[in-house]
Amino acid sequence: MSSLKLSAVEMVQSLKKGEITSEELVKSYIEQIKKKEKEVEAWEFFDQELVLNQAKKLDELHQSGKHGDLHGIPVGIKDIFDTENMPTTDGTEIHKENPSWNDCTVVSKLRQAGAIIMGKTVTAELAYYSPGKTKNPHDPTRTPGGSSSGSAAAVASHMVPLAVGSQTNGSVIRPASYCGVVGYKPSKGYISRHLVLQVSRALDQVGVFSNSIEDAALISEQLIGYDKQDPDTSLNPKPKLLAASKQKPPAEPILAYIKLPFMSELEEDAKEGFEEIKDELKGKVDEMELPEGFANIPKWHKIIMESDMAQSFSKEYKNSKNKLSDKIIEAIERGMKYTSVEYKDALSKIDVANVYFNQFFHDYDAILTPSANGEAPKGLKSTGNPIFSTIWTYCGMPSISLPLLQGKNGLPIGVQLVSSLYDDERLFRNASWLTSKIKK
Amino acid sequence: MSSLKLSAVEMVQSLKKGEITSEELVKSYIEQIKKKEKEVEAWEFFDQELVLNQAKKLDELHQSGKHGDLHGIPVGIKDIFDTENMPTTDGTEIHKENPSWNDCTVVSKLRQAGAIIMGKTVTAELAYYSPGKTKNPHDPTRTPGGSSSGSAAAVASHMVPLAVGSQTNGSVIRPASYCGVVGYKPSKGYISRHLVLQVSRALDQVGVFSNSIEDAALISEQLIGYDKQDPDTSLNPKPKLLAASKQKPPAEPILAYIKLPFMSELEEDAKEGFEEIKDELKGKVDEMELPEGFANIPKWHKIIMESDMAQSFSKEYKNSKNKLSDKIIEAIERGMKYTSVEYKDALSKIDVANVYFNQFFHDYDAILTPSANGEAPKGLKSTGNPIFSTIWTYCGMPSISLPLLQGKNGLPIGVQLVSSLYDDERLFRNASWLTSKIKK
Repeated sequence: MSSLKLSAVEMVQSLKKGEITSEELVKSYIEQIKKKEKEVEAWEFFDQELVLNQAKKLDELHQSGKHGDLHGIPVGIKDIFDTENMPTTDGTEIHKENPSWNDCTVVSKLRQAGAIIMGKTVTAELAYYSPGKTKNPHDPTRTPGGSSSGSAAAVASHMVPLAVGSQTNGSVIRPASYCGVVGYKPSKGYISRHLVLQVSRALDQVGVFSNSIEDAALISEQLIGYDKQDPDTSLNPKPKLLAASKQKPPAEPILAYIKLPFMSELEEDAKEGFEEIKDELKGKVDEMELPEGFANIPKWHKIIMESDMAQSFSKEYKNSKNKLSDKIIEAIERGMKYTSVEYKDALSKIDVANVYFNQFFHDYDAILTPSANGEAPKGLKSTGNPIFSTIWTYCGMPSISLPLLQGKNGLPIGVQLVSSLYDDERLFRNASWLTSKIKK
Repeated sequence: MSSLKLSAVEMVQSLKKGEITSEELVKSYIEQIKKKEKEVEAWEFFDQELVLNQAKKLDELHQSGKHGDLHGIPVGIKDIFDTENMPTTDGTEIHKENPSWNDCTVVSKLRQAGAIIMGKTVTAELAYYSPGKTKNPHDPTRTPGGSSSGSAAAVASHMVPLAVGSQTNGSVIRPASYCGVVGYKPSKGYISRHLVLQVSRALDQVGVFSNSIEDAALISEQLIGYDKQDPDTSLNPKPKLLAASKQKPPAEPILAYIKLPFMSELEEDAKEGFEEIKDELKGKVDEMELPEGFANIPKWHKIIMESDMAQSFSKEYKNSKNKLSDKIIEAIERGMKYTSVEYKDALSKIDVANVYFNQFFHDYDAILTPSANGEAPKGLKSTGNPIFSTIWTYCGMPSISLPLLQGKNGLPIGVQLVSSLYDDERLFRNASWLTSKIKK
């Protein structure tokens, strides 16, 4: 059981040195799953034998001197990433009848790095909004957030040290915040979406969950890279995130705290938490407003996302409407009504916004901003409000949620840092710096 | 005057050897313009002094031993390509009030190669359909085709050896066919559209006009290449077109003659011409039909083009509708009505079609197909029918129009070859082979 206290970075070392075997490690996680799963319900698919077999094979490889960078480390996979030997249901009954059985690029890269595919974690319906069965590990009467609900909850309850999710609006950052783990959504195009359920080609981005910044770097370095199967992946050189997470920023960072147009939705205790952080960083945080037009970003984001959903889910809508939630039917039907000009205008503003932010990050090292509205809301019928991620997802900027605050009920509240597009290394340097400042 | 009989490839040699000067060459073209322009009206902007000054500077550079690959060669520029010292009107009164004065990437690359920017050639209104003043050089009562009307007509009447145009539907291949010159539209993304009037980001492609296949290769090699200012430009290695145009195909090519769904629009004399070619190439041409769904390509092309026009020309429509032609107003208004889902469906079929054609070109070396419906139609109120280019432009496949046939009025009829996306070298090998077969 004590190995669950180790970070994934430390586990890699222990496994490499032979201090523990992958089988031993996996068995302790299986124990934890047996203990926690009944309450948390993070897993859509989990097969103990499948996992133990992978661990045994990896131990054999270790004996013969072969080691990947994630050798023997269990990883949870959001149930929208196609996986060879596990069903993928995309959180909908409709796809249960006809699951796909090929490894997506993310799973295939994880296998190449020697990771153990631990199982499929619960997702909201079609990675949109309507919740699956998962509960918040800190309070089972509250939502874990969504749509990557199971991945966040599984990492938070130590059923797995690392997990993969995706974000089209706020589906990595929000559940990370509600569950009190690190959630990292890299720059748009850094991680391939080949054989991942497509919600919106323009907006879908892959992200990860972990219990430390270094662990998020560890797994992301294995996933980032151009993939000709996803033509939107970036050709930029791979960022060195693990190194960056251990570096100090070259100068004391200056953060921007933006008075967002929807700041009134932030809960009182979260507001107080951010005031304390600003006090702690006295003189290092500038408060400001965005140019006026930026208040339209949530509207533009909605036009793109819902139009794309109307296209992505046209078959489900046409053939199995009765099996879809009202929430997603409404989104699809709104999406069917936008004109192509509205859609393209909304798309074209992404570049306009990024021109502004590129300049912005000459003056600031990161944006400091809430990950969500506050503690995980009561109830399991909603997955909470994604609005605090919308602008950054729309622009594709890299962001990370850090579990640095606590709300009035003792539940975690995330602090989000956002960096310039393709400057994920700077994001990791600043995330480590901020954590050391606040935790000291 | 005799230098006008030389190919551009030969002129480059003569200039390099000092057999003629750029000033002498340009003066003979100025003479030709004085002789022909009154009848043809190919030029929107032409300034003799500007051109002579360029020639003198290039002769000085020649003296000091500096030579670009198009050193001293005059080139005509369609009046939608921004040019530093010449106005760009995009064929509309609206833009005459506020022309732009920067070199687009194409003009800047031509200058770097030592070309002389001879002037701006007449374009249809906003590179769409409504004709400018240009007449067909073979018969002034007939259209030169459009929208690159002036570029095709200027090359056909030897007012310039090379010219640049663009094609969103059939605006290079059709005027080349009607005017009896070589027209080449490279693979989508090969030539940058930075600072070129945008009609449709998804469909706009730059092309060239010349009096020989080698000359088309000569200028295109200078223009093809990635440009970060046009994010849709291709990262593929530059094709060696000049070398390819002199090579024999590795084996006797097999051509595909496709019975297109709109083949009934082909004139009788053009039909006969193609029958003769097929006879000449006996056993080397397979006739076939496309899969059923491909009949929808003209509809999908129209949805994309008109939606994009509604966006590209929204300001002109809003502020200066009374100065737009009925034809373009109708297109814009249709474009405003498509839904985002219709638009994206139409876009997504491009990839589907290309998967088919990629496989297709394992079996065939090129598609042999009409460039247009026949001889240039009578009258100057229309620029003719682009339908014979629509499928290839939609897919972005490279195509070339070769002036190999003559119609019943003695006017030129083009023969179009189409190759696999990014296999422009093969297109040039096959174009030279076909020309030698037919002309022998």
